[in-house]
Amino acid sequence: MLESLRAEVLEANLELVRRGLVLYTFGNASGLARAEGLVVIKPSGVPYNEMTPAHMVVTDLKGRVVEGNLRPSTDLATHIALYLSSPRVGGVVHTHSRHATAWAQAGREIPCFGTTHADYFHGAVPVTEALSPAEVETAYEANTGVAILRTLGTRDALSCPAMLVHGHGPFCWGATVTEAVHTAVIVEELAAMAWMTIAINPAATPIALSLRDKHHFRKHGATATYGQK
Amino acid sequence: MLESLRAEVLEANLELVRRGLVLYTFGNASGLARAEGLVVIKPSGVPYNEMTPAHMVVTDLKGRVVEGNLRPSTDLATHIALYLSSPRVGGVVHTHSRHATAWAQAGREIPCFGTTHADYFHGAVPVTEALSPAEVETAYEANTGVAILRTLGTRDALSCPAMLVHGHGPFCWGATVTEAVHTAVIVEELAAMAWMTIAINPAATPIALSLRDKHHFRKHGATATYGQK
Amino acid sequence: MLESLRAEVLEANLELVRRGLVLYTFGNASGLARAEGLVVIKPSGVPYNEMTPAHMVVTDLKGRVVEGNLRPSTDLATHIALYLSSPRVGGVVHTHSRHATAWAQAGREIPCFGTTHADYFHGAVPVTEALSPAEVETAYEANTGVAILRTLGTRDALSCPAMLVHGHGPFCWGATVTEAVHTAVIVEELAAMAWMTIAINPAATPIALSLRDKHHFRKHGATATYGQK
Amino acid sequence: MLESLRAEVLEANLELVRRGLVLYTFGNASGLARAEGLVVIKPSGVPYNEMTPAHMVVTDLKGRVVEGNLRPSTDLATHIALYLSSPRVGGVVHTHSRHATAWAQAGREIPCFGTTHADYFHGAVPVTEALSPAEVETAYEANTGVAILRTLGTRDALSCPAMLVHGHGPFCWGATVTEAVHTAVIVEELAAMAWMTIAINPAATPIALSLRDKHHFRKHGATATYGQK
Repeated sequence: MLESLRAEVLEANLELVRRGLVLYTFGNASGLARAEGLVVIKPSGVPYNEMTPAHMVVTDLKGRVVEGNLRPSTDLATHIALYLSSPRVGGVVHTHSRHATAWAQAGREIPCFGTTHADYFHGAVPVTEALSPAEVETAYEANTGVAILRTLGTRDALSCPAMLVHGHGPFCWGATVTEAVHTAVIVEELAAMAWMTIAINPAATPIALSLRDKHHFRKHGATATYGQK
Repeated sequence: MLESLRAEVLEANLELVRRGLVLYTFGNASGLARAEGLVVIKPSGVPYNEMTPAHMVVTDLKGRVVEGNLRPSTDLATHIALYLSSPRVGGVVHTHSRHATAWAQAGREIPCFGTTHADYFHGAVPVTEALSPAEVETAYEANTGVAILRTLGTRDALSCPAMLVHGHGPFCWGATVTEAVHTAVIVEELAAMAWMTIAINPAATPIALSLRDKHHFRKHGATATYGQK
Repeated sequence: MLESLRAEVLEANLELVRRGLVLYTFGNASGLARAEGLVVIKPSGVPYNEMTPAHMVVTDLKGRVVEGNLRPSTDLATHIALYLSSPRVGGVVHTHSRHATAWAQAGREIPCFGTTHADYFHGAVPVTEALSPAEVETAYEANTGVAILRTLGTRDALSCPAMLVHGHGPFCWGATVTEAVHTAVIVEELAAMAWMTIAINPAATPIALSLRDKHHFRKHGATATYGQK
Repeated sequence: MLESLRAEVLEANLELVRRGLVLYTFGNASGLARAEGLVVIKPSGVPYNEMTPAHMVVTDLKGRVVEGNLRPSTDLATHIALYLSSPRVGGVVHTHSRHATAWAQAGREIPCFGTTHADYFHGAVPVTEALSPAEVETAYEANTGVAILRTLGTRDALSCPAMLVHGHGPFCWGATVTEAVHTAVIVEELAAMAWMTIAINPAATPIALSLRDKHHFRKHGATATYGQK
């Protein structure tokens, strides 16, 4: 079932390892077969070097395992919240990558300090508020999704393809799981650059909106000129 | 004697090298054969690329060499203090890994700034007090163990599987030496993230106890849901 | 057409990857065939591991594609501005390398804190002013070149072979594209060292002019003694 | 001539590359044949991947080339100053390794913040004063040696086997060039740890003298217990 998506989800998880974004069994990536209403996600706590497409777990959008003998990643409910939030989200990735996690632990959004950032985000990479004790105690993983969506507000999820969960780490998403991994790599790089930026100049400010828009719309939307036709 | 433990201890020492936690002959890992009351430990000052299981030194719990022609690691007495402190400790690792050592040198515990940390520790990674001149001058390595146990207080060692020794570096332990190495890798990562966290937000605070407990007990204890059954 | 320059430009782009200066399709390098008035530049958004010399795009000095089916790098107009500014510039490189970009985002020049720096630059690595909204909205890439030349002032471009573009990242140049890549690697290293220098001593000052000149002219100009005759 | 020393000096230079201490042709290592009064040193500006033992340059202790067609490293005179300062110095290494150079650029000694440091140095890694303009203008490289010796004072060079030259970078030495390279690797590590230590705790202080002495004399001198007999 969903052989091609299983393969893509496995590859996405392995790419997280190759890019240095995960330690041990940290992190998880999933993809959505929207027509079927099925999620393919990494199993919980299985070493990356042993994973095959057959280890991927298939669940429905209520989180019930449809195929597979393994438990899905504990963060499944957060992934599902994102899939349900927008018809355009087809992949979700969560890591504890070092620099992005440091911003999440610091409880600060990553400001749009430069064009590298603007090439991917039309503004800061936001950070959620801390979850309340009640949100943590019951349905924690689903409430993590609620916190992300609360911070997204009325924006479509794809217009802001990543967020830091307060005290936790980055969640990233995209039209496909492959895109979501790409975004996870970028967020880690932006987090590293921003950390150094404020060390070099504690009064550093985000770039002007004109520059932000120029870079963002060179790469995104109808007027994009980056890349090949 | 203890062939399988010798192999595991060697492998643990080599894993420290592969994970980038040791330079040259820094660091040491040991394992305990509790039934026999014997410790298998890395020899002192032997290059990692020359070590074989036969180089591992076997001692009793008074630190006397039982098998082997080489001197054991100078830190043997600290390892033994941990083995004697709890019937559950089966492996001990000491490194001078860069970030964790920086916290030890700074004389600060590593606060529980995020869920990555809470997944492994139920609170800060503590730091000992500095040893007194008298403790340093006589039985220094044993007194390092005393300082660790003093800071542990009434807690069982496995409930807090690592500590920073003031002005020195991290000691980590676990049910096995393999687990202790895993913890040493995690402590280094937590130390790196925490260093960046306070640079990004000098007023960063530990996560709420509810979030800490949720993550900790997703992975530890009777109610754990992480990983496979 | 220009087979040897195509090969050199490809190699220069690949060297940026090997040196860790670019992520994904970030960065671009070009070379000039001055006699022919032709620029050979990396195509926009093509993965590095798929590029061959045939993918390089040949344009004239007005930015019109002369040979090749691919779009040139979006930053072409900035490269051309540098080629037109000095008869000695034969190669241009742009990266978003991590440390140099952090200085650009911080809006600060990299001070000449040591002899490593003075070996390559006769003073700070300058940073441009931020472009005005009007400069960003129309002919942005050409205006980026204008901003660089404005900051260069009356200096010949080769006397200051790199600059940080405010809120963006480093542009580097040289007599050849191979030299420009070498400079890009050096600028990244200088940026890293300078970042740590001001962390260690916020009051750090540039080295004395006598030391700066001694090092610079050991390696550059008629009195150079570095290297082989 | 001096085939075995040529091989050791080449290997020492290559080890600097493998350990990540040098970029391009930065850095240099030399060894002394004291009985013959001859220095074997890396040639200036030759890429490391092309160097063979035959490229090493042999000079006398006045810096005159005795064998070889290549120019010696520009820093030869500094190496010679160290060889002449103590009958025990047999190897000298100079790098621009990133963290140690940052401390040199900051103009600060590296405090003895921990036992890793004390294992190698009996106190801080000192930094020289800045050279005067007159010292820079004439016999600069020899005067760099003078500045090092001035800061050493009455200590034997081997009792303090490294120093930061103000605004420049580390010089390291030892009984052999192999030892000097080892020290260069350690100094870089100590510099990295110390940089993070003061970021974590700006009020961090050196370890107590009792702890410093305990560690130092576990590894050095007549009472050493580290390593094998």
